Amino acid sequence: MSDASERLLVKTLAQAVIKELSKKARSVALGVSNRHVHLCRADMDALFGEGSELTFRNALRQPGQFAAEETLTVRGPKGELKKVRVLGPLRSETQAEVSISDGYALGIKPPVRDSGNIVGSAGVTLIGPRGEVQKAQGAIAAMRHVHLDPHSAALLGLQDKQRISLELGGKRGAVLNNVLVRVSPGFLPEAHLDLDEANAAGAKNGDIVRLVF
Amino acid sequence: MSDASERLLVKTLAQAVIKELSKKARSVALGVSNRHVHLCRADMDALFGEGSELTFRNALRQPGQFAAEETLTVRGPKGELKKVRVLGPLRSETQAEVSISDGYALGIKPPVRDSGNIVGSAGVTLIGPRGEVQKAQGAIAAMRHVHLDPHSAALLGLQDKQRISLELGGKRGAVLNNVLVRVSPGFLPEAHLDLDEANAAGAKNGDIVRLVF
Repeated sequence: MSDASERLLVKTLAQAVIKELSKKARSVALGVSNRHVHLCRADMDALFGEGSELTFRNALRQPGQFAAEETLTVRGPKGELKKVRVLGPLRSETQAEVSISDGYALGIKPPVRDSGNIVGSAGVTLIGPRGEVQKAQGAIAAMRHVHLDPHSAALLGLQDKQRISLELGGKRGAVLNNVLVRVSPGFLPEAHLDLDEANAAGAKNGDIVRLVF
Repeated sequence: MSDASERLLVKTLAQAVIKELSKKARSVALGVSNRHVHLCRADMDALFGEGSELTFRNALRQPGQFAAEETLTVRGPKGELKKVRVLGPLRSETQAEVSISDGYALGIKPPVRDSGNIVGSAGVTLIGPRGEVQKAQGAIAAMRHVHLDPHSAALLGLQDKQRISLELGGKRGAVLNNVLVRVSPGFLPEAHLDLDEANAAGAKNGDIVRLVF
């Protein structure tokens, strides 16, 4: 075989392998988020006692993230939701992630926001065993997103903060647009929907969904 | 102008008009259904009194359909939903349309079904001011659908019972697949989603959505 035809063969083979890997990388696990709260140090102190720590309950798919044994009550002007799970570890700012449905029950209008973007979001009262905290803002409905490690992102040709679509099969199958791509070395590939979105698409935790772009 | 070129002109013009009309017909109003109950005569008697009639409250978009002043409590093994609206007129079979979210609150698993298809669906207890009725079946999550009159359906080339998709814009924009087409002379063009679906897509009653097929 000539050098030229060998190079062509290697190139063609490499392209075929990348195409297959990329096809596989488009399928990711679905994580469905029920309502939950992230707490900052000061609010943890106020709700669960000075210097208290979150108790590990079970690991979430994203490395280092976990559901805590601790739960609290989220109260709005119209109603309250009990036993809302706290997720760990602690963060720099407290954030309550609720669905639009939960918003009706609480009597608030949580804006659909990317996680961490809480300025001017809805206010709620958090009630723990040792005290309560009134948050003027911090309640959002999380914008759907997909976590990717840099390797998977590169394979797919996707960048951090890009918006793509998510295809779900089944009886209530749908293509959800405006899905935020988040790339970090600390992530594993996983698409996140809230419970309203999962219910609407008839999807559940652990389903395999498809990235479309 | 020759006869032939006149015929061609008329034909071209007609096709252009049909294309424009069809484009317009693809945009329909969205009706968002919150949980509600349809009652049969026997259950109306049991819940609101022998020979009682529904009281008109407001008309729905579909001709002849209305929301009644009457509400009732829907109870499941885990919880209950109060003030659930009754829709009129009475039907041959009682049917409670709830969302998957409502199912969690009630402790039941309503199957996603086309309206009227209630065999083997979830059971609930209905509680009215004059009595209560235990339904062994009748609670469903309504399959999303679009109502069309025969004229609009013909213009679009759509048939009764066909499945199409529905495109919604906005921040949580999506294309929902498996949308049942229902054609009847008694219908006006309107797409129906339940509240979970509307919340997930950030859509509300009266929004204009697009039929895709």
